[in-house]
Amino acid sequence: MPEPLRGAGVSPGIGAGPVRTVAGAVPEPPAGDRHGGDAAAEKQRALAALEAVAADLEARGEQAAARGNKDGQEVLGAQALMARDPGLADGVAAKVDEGTAAPRAVFEAFGVYRDMLAGAGEYLAARVADLDDIRDRAVARLLGLPMPGVPESDEPFVLVARDLAPADTALLDPALVVAFVTEEGGPTSHTAILARTMGVPAVVALPGATGLPEGARVLVDGGAGTVLVGPADEEVAAARDAASARASLLMEVTGPGATADGHRVPLLANIGGPRDVEAAVMNGAEGVGLYRTEFLFLDRATPPGDEEQERAYREVLEAFPDGRVVVRTLDAGADKPLAFLPPPGEEPNPALGERGLRMARLHPDVLRGQLAALARAASGASAKLEVMAPMVTDAAEAAFFAGACRDAGIEYPGVMVEVPAAALRARDLAPEVEFFSIGTNDLTQYACAADRQIGGLAGFQDPWQPAVLDLVAMAAGAAGEAGKGCGVCGEAAGDPALACVLVGLGVTSLSMSAPTLPLVRAALARHTLDQCRAAAGAARAARSAAEARESARALLPVLPELGL
Amino acid sequence: MPEPLRGAGVSPGIGAGPVRTVAGAVPEPPAGDRHGGDAAAEKQRALAALEAVAADLEARGEQAAARGNKDGQEVLGAQALMARDPGLADGVAAKVDEGTAAPRAVFEAFGVYRDMLAGAGEYLAARVADLDDIRDRAVARLLGLPMPGVPESDEPFVLVARDLAPADTALLDPALVVAFVTEEGGPTSHTAILARTMGVPAVVALPGATGLPEGARVLVDGGAGTVLVGPADEEVAAARDAASARASLLMEVTGPGATADGHRVPLLANIGGPRDVEAAVMNGAEGVGLYRTEFLFLDRATPPGDEEQERAYREVLEAFPDGRVVVRTLDAGADKPLAFLPPPGEEPNPALGERGLRMARLHPDVLRGQLAALARAASGASAKLEVMAPMVTDAAEAAFFAGACRDAGIEYPGVMVEVPAAALRARDLAPEVEFFSIGTNDLTQYACAADRQIGGLAGFQDPWQPAVLDLVAMAAGAAGEAGKGCGVCGEAAGDPALACVLVGLGVTSLSMSAPTLPLVRAALARHTLDQCRAAAGAARAARSAAEARESARALLPVLPELGL
Repeated sequence: MPEPLRGAGVSPGIGAGPVRTVAGAVPEPPAGDRHGGDAAAEKQRALAALEAVAADLEARGEQAAARGNKDGQEVLGAQALMARDPGLADGVAAKVDEGTAAPRAVFEAFGVYRDMLAGAGEYLAARVADLDDIRDRAVARLLGLPMPGVPESDEPFVLVARDLAPADTALLDPALVVAFVTEEGGPTSHTAILARTMGVPAVVALPGATGLPEGARVLVDGGAGTVLVGPADEEVAAARDAASARASLLMEVTGPGATADGHRVPLLANIGGPRDVEAAVMNGAEGVGLYRTEFLFLDRATPPGDEEQERAYREVLEAFPDGRVVVRTLDAGADKPLAFLPPPGEEPNPALGERGLRMARLHPDVLRGQLAALARAASGASAKLEVMAPMVTDAAEAAFFAGACRDAGIEYPGVMVEVPAAALRARDLAPEVEFFSIGTNDLTQYACAADRQIGGLAGFQDPWQPAVLDLVAMAAGAAGEAGKGCGVCGEAAGDPALACVLVGLGVTSLSMSAPTLPLVRAALARHTLDQCRAAAGAARAARSAAEARESARALLPVLPELGL
Repeated sequence: MPEPLRGAGVSPGIGAGPVRTVAGAVPEPPAGDRHGGDAAAEKQRALAALEAVAADLEARGEQAAARGNKDGQEVLGAQALMARDPGLADGVAAKVDEGTAAPRAVFEAFGVYRDMLAGAGEYLAARVADLDDIRDRAVARLLGLPMPGVPESDEPFVLVARDLAPADTALLDPALVVAFVTEEGGPTSHTAILARTMGVPAVVALPGATGLPEGARVLVDGGAGTVLVGPADEEVAAARDAASARASLLMEVTGPGATADGHRVPLLANIGGPRDVEAAVMNGAEGVGLYRTEFLFLDRATPPGDEEQERAYREVLEAFPDGRVVVRTLDAGADKPLAFLPPPGEEPNPALGERGLRMARLHPDVLRGQLAALARAASGASAKLEVMAPMVTDAAEAAFFAGACRDAGIEYPGVMVEVPAAALRARDLAPEVEFFSIGTNDLTQYACAADRQIGGLAGFQDPWQPAVLDLVAMAAGAAGEAGKGCGVCGEAAGDPALACVLVGLGVTSLSMSAPTLPLVRAALARHTLDQCRAAAGAARAARSAAEARESARALLPVLPELGL
């Protein structure tokens, strides 16, 4: 029997189907390519290609909207605008006037924008993929090559790619994609987040993924992170049976989160705005464990008004009567630059720069305005409002933030624990605040000094790293000694096995993407607190993330029964 | 008596003299400035200004060379080349042709290069300061403003600046500068490293430094990090007396490093090439604790040849008969890009990217070549060769590196501990290698998630942060349990008080810039191991870097007597 290929499972579940690979890269037109001499005709050709790309992007945007995918339409509409940028057209025309052939002229004109974006911090750098996509489409048109992007298909398939851009996925028909497999990417890549939101299994960072033969049948296990080429029918059937058994098991477990022996662990949802509330409620969230507030501040020239903020907060508080809502104050920085909050200088490493609370301390008026709006929104609401600061490093910062909250009339100030120093010195921070919330994504990034955006470092971005578990244990232990709560709101909380381990380490609540709530609820409900503690001990005794995962799972016997 | 101003002391010693401030910033010529209409004359004027700047830079380079400062000449020569770049001249001419006035045209033409450099990783981003300096000089010439840069003086003075660029300092007469004071910068800034190399006291990150009145007499204490404006004569005299008392005290202490009660702590030097060996030997180094090998690989199109490498290693080994030499293998990455080792992709945060051993694993041939050359250089040498890898994260990486060393015939493989995960899981790494060497600069940067290059985060770049001391204790403790050595080779080792604390934490050797060796030797020789341990305990019990420093110093009573 052939061995399955191993990558990183980032969205659990089983999917089987034929491989459909996103068309390969459009080649770079060679430097020095000249046109025949008729510059006017060549310009016409180049501009027509750009316009055709723009029109196609718009049409795909409308198709996406027709399927209810408004975000997809927005992304594609923004790309169409880029393709029609007059500066870009001028750049192409100038190069054609110098004698450059249309494909090369388009390629070079995009290069100028690309360099600007690539140097402008994480948020804009991420837009480089969108820009490259437009360029490749225009070049492909000019060279008569197949259009890059998601393949057309009438039957369900496994989508394989090097990595996926938002433009690739905006048009996906969720009914046809049975699994994602990518060669690059990590647990926090676009593919991973999309897959979890869609509830589709995904394996990323699979070496050689794009070499899988087109059309070959594969069996993808998004929990184990494996891809089996040419599975026997009975293997697929067994996997499917396990999946449906799991579905019925999941339906049996409802209500508040707790271990098998009744140890309560509130299960909360991570949301990015009021529009995410519905999914949270539908999946039985007991509240919100991470309300990201950046959506109020991004893409605008001035801060949001007091009433606009208050409304956005109140809407979420009212959705969870007698529940709890943990709001994170604005997490801005050079990686998410805001027009009205420019970073104080150039930042060679935005992730290590003046972001989160550091930025808020430079602009105390923005922080004060947000806290005041939160306090007003909470007055009269039955939900408990807790407010936490991102990127807190030491006790003095925790004390500063708690003071600012109390001045605004907020009773439950807390801090994110995502900087290793904050976890290491959690005993110093605990007396200053009412709760901790561990952000495992950034905590892992800093503890292993491995950028979340670099696919080649996926192994170090794994929250199963024993060093990360040690830091979680320190933070949870210090909170427990001080009689305070310690939640986890990173991607780790949505991994059913890791969720059990986190509870075993002393974590008191878990917050995750809404679709993963039922899985975690079921995993917790079938294991006792002692089993969770034993699994946590075994994981911390391991010497690698893989070993930690394996030894913890060995002590959580009901997971396989749940298909996890 | 007025209170002294407080910054960060980064090079110990006392200096008193009049303030001389580096001329303020050259203003940006307003956008939209137009010339009178004679584009040809305006172009002439702009290009003449660039040429004059180039000629001036060259002349200053020759002056620097005449004083034996070859590096200074190289930096200034490279700047002159930039000023004469034909692409730049074309850019200026094009803008003047469009009607833009010469100063604005120069400013804008530099902007294009600036954006490119700023987006190209730490190493090139650092060149932005050089580029700005040329631009400002040309604009100042065109506007008739005083030239920016180091002030002229015939008498000794205290150099005050916002921050110092290499071009500012290449021309400094060391006999005339009695102290450095800067408003920005941290312990690893250019100013700090230069000051320690020159043996001149320096205080950085002093708020309001550039507001010190020109010509006012100030007393700078580079150990305490204070600047006193208008000191009384007796205050200066007392500080001077203390300094000369300290000098004689320092001269009394010679020989191998040890505490007052005879606990041996080898004192080693950090070097960047064979040219640094002389200073190490003169200051009584017992060997080399960090031999950075990047100088062999930078600024060349192909890797160095086997013989060139072997020679560079042998030269240092032979300088320390029966001593020890710890070589760090190539530490390349997106922040120090090498022509023949391009990073595998774009890195939004080079400090968290594929650097150090991560990069070496992508290019095993380069690592194998370096290890083989090291093994050949050590054969027959009486010095003990130890070889360590930078940027090691977990036990598997440590095992990989140790295996590669042993395959090459190197008996003492070790790892740098600079990633928090490596310190947290030091018990897992210790069995794989023969020694640890803690890099406190990067360890602090990652533990506090604070970029070493951002002046505004200097408070978090302080190795006195209790979280960093905890990580040092974990690494040293794990090494001790396994019977292995654990050195420190970051800037922390050169701080006499912190050196005592590190020894108290279980560190077994200290490696530092050569000029700080006598200070550390004296501080250790006057305190017992128990005093060091008590100071370490007090520092770890503190809740902030400042409190840690203060409570440790209170338990190291001989430091004030040594003027430290």
